[in-house]
Amino acid sequence: MRIAFQGTVGAYSEAAAQRAWPEAETAPLERFDDVFDAVRHGRVSHGILPIENSVGGSIHRNYDLLLEHDLPIVGETELPVIHNLLALPGTEKSAIRRVFSHPQGLAQCERYIRSLPGVEMVATYDTAGSAKLIREGGLKDTAAIASARAAEVFGLAILDAGIQDFAHNITRFILIAREPHSLGVPDKTTLAFALYNAPGALFKALSVFALRDIDLTKLESRPARGMPWEYLFYADLSVGRDDLRCARAIVHLAESARWVKTLGSYQGWRGTTAKP
Amino acid sequence: MRIAFQGTVGAYSEAAAQRAWPEAETAPLERFDDVFDAVRHGRVSHGILPIENSVGGSIHRNYDLLLEHDLPIVGETELPVIHNLLALPGTEKSAIRRVFSHPQGLAQCERYIRSLPGVEMVATYDTAGSAKLIREGGLKDTAAIASARAAEVFGLAILDAGIQDFAHNITRFILIAREPHSLGVPDKTTLAFALYNAPGALFKALSVFALRDIDLTKLESRPARGMPWEYLFYADLSVGRDDLRCARAIVHLAESARWVKTLGSYQGWRGTTAKP
Repeated sequence: MRIAFQGTVGAYSEAAAQRAWPEAETAPLERFDDVFDAVRHGRVSHGILPIENSVGGSIHRNYDLLLEHDLPIVGETELPVIHNLLALPGTEKSAIRRVFSHPQGLAQCERYIRSLPGVEMVATYDTAGSAKLIREGGLKDTAAIASARAAEVFGLAILDAGIQDFAHNITRFILIAREPHSLGVPDKTTLAFALYNAPGALFKALSVFALRDIDLTKLESRPARGMPWEYLFYADLSVGRDDLRCARAIVHLAESARWVKTLGSYQGWRGTTAKP
Repeated sequence: MRIAFQGTVGAYSEAAAQRAWPEAETAPLERFDDVFDAVRHGRVSHGILPIENSVGGSIHRNYDLLLEHDLPIVGETELPVIHNLLALPGTEKSAIRRVFSHPQGLAQCERYIRSLPGVEMVATYDTAGSAKLIREGGLKDTAAIASARAAEVFGLAILDAGIQDFAHNITRFILIAREPHSLGVPDKTTLAFALYNAPGALFKALSVFALRDIDLTKLESRPARGMPWEYLFYADLSVGRDDLRCARAIVHLAESARWVKTLGSYQGWRGTTAKP
């Protein structure tokens, strides 16, 4: 098992993969697109992708890529996001003039960064990569916002821990593969679908699940790309694709939807997210 | 009419307010919280807030603030987001070493910025504010990602126009006030509600609208803050609050929901978003 992730060694995606599948090797790649390509061409067996954050919401970019590619979801995991201020050992907090991180890392710690006087925020392509830049450049006036693991990997000191503006910051990750072989017994199914624009269309669509006592653990409408305010839907069902009720519900949904796509059926995350 | 917005003169929020309510004065404020405070204390009559983007999705922070404060939505408008690369007149693109913008502006133009070799991304608190920094500092090696209006306000040249990675990038804005006096005849109502965790709960909730032929133009589930993966819902109804069907549906919904809050009833945007 070899899992590709977006980012540098020490990224949150890598930490999530290592915690959920400790026997797997991990492989860093520059972009989310690269993770899909590596899985499609068989250079890795799996790819891990952040799909939803409890503060920021769904990561639409990765839903888009799931729709573009035909690579099924085969597993899921969660990880609490704990941002830290990292710098070269010996650096005083008062000497910091610049903070490096991914734009989302900067946005999630905005209140904290504002509390540091005269500090400039520099956006980078990933959180752990920021730690790497500081180590490689020997930058004494710069700090990174990244994971504790990135501090360890790049030999940086943690000046402040848990600096994210909202304490309950958890990211849900999905695991993709080339073939729909779920890790464990599938008990969760993710669908995307689009409806015709008619009153009650969503209510009718949801009736196919309610009539069969299938619970939805997530439902989100999202403006469709290139068609402003036409919505498509993401739904997580609390049942595996092989369950006859699920199969029938999807056929039933397809009768009235514009289109329906099963993004994967997999074993839902059962771990305790609270314990990092 | 005096509308507060978050950001500097030349911000997208200001442009949206000026286009929809040309007779109003506008007032720049540093943060979204400040916009709510200015409205609550009567320093301005209204506040404008981005609430949803067709690429990035809902702006959860502003939904949170709507739930915290008791300031009703009284209007809405839309604006296409057209990002531009701005610099001091006479600056060559090849001389650019740094790009300033809000983290979201940087994220929305990531592909474009990657195409500029050896350029560092510097995050700032707003897009138009980046243009201001370049003008005030006379920075010859720096560009900003901001609106054409920001170029005009701060006397910068547009080196590249329409540089956002996704062409159809539209933001929906809401207008808040102290009293629920809608501008125009209300034909749209925004609700937030939370449900008990039971199978079919959402289906039952939506039945209160379907049974009364009320269409939902938006429905989104969102992890509740501080309760990982407990979801709350945002819904836009295609009917005004004074319509008897709407009033009855809300009472009916309250029977089974944990809580229901009407965030406002207002006239939906009728303009042509395509024409900036």
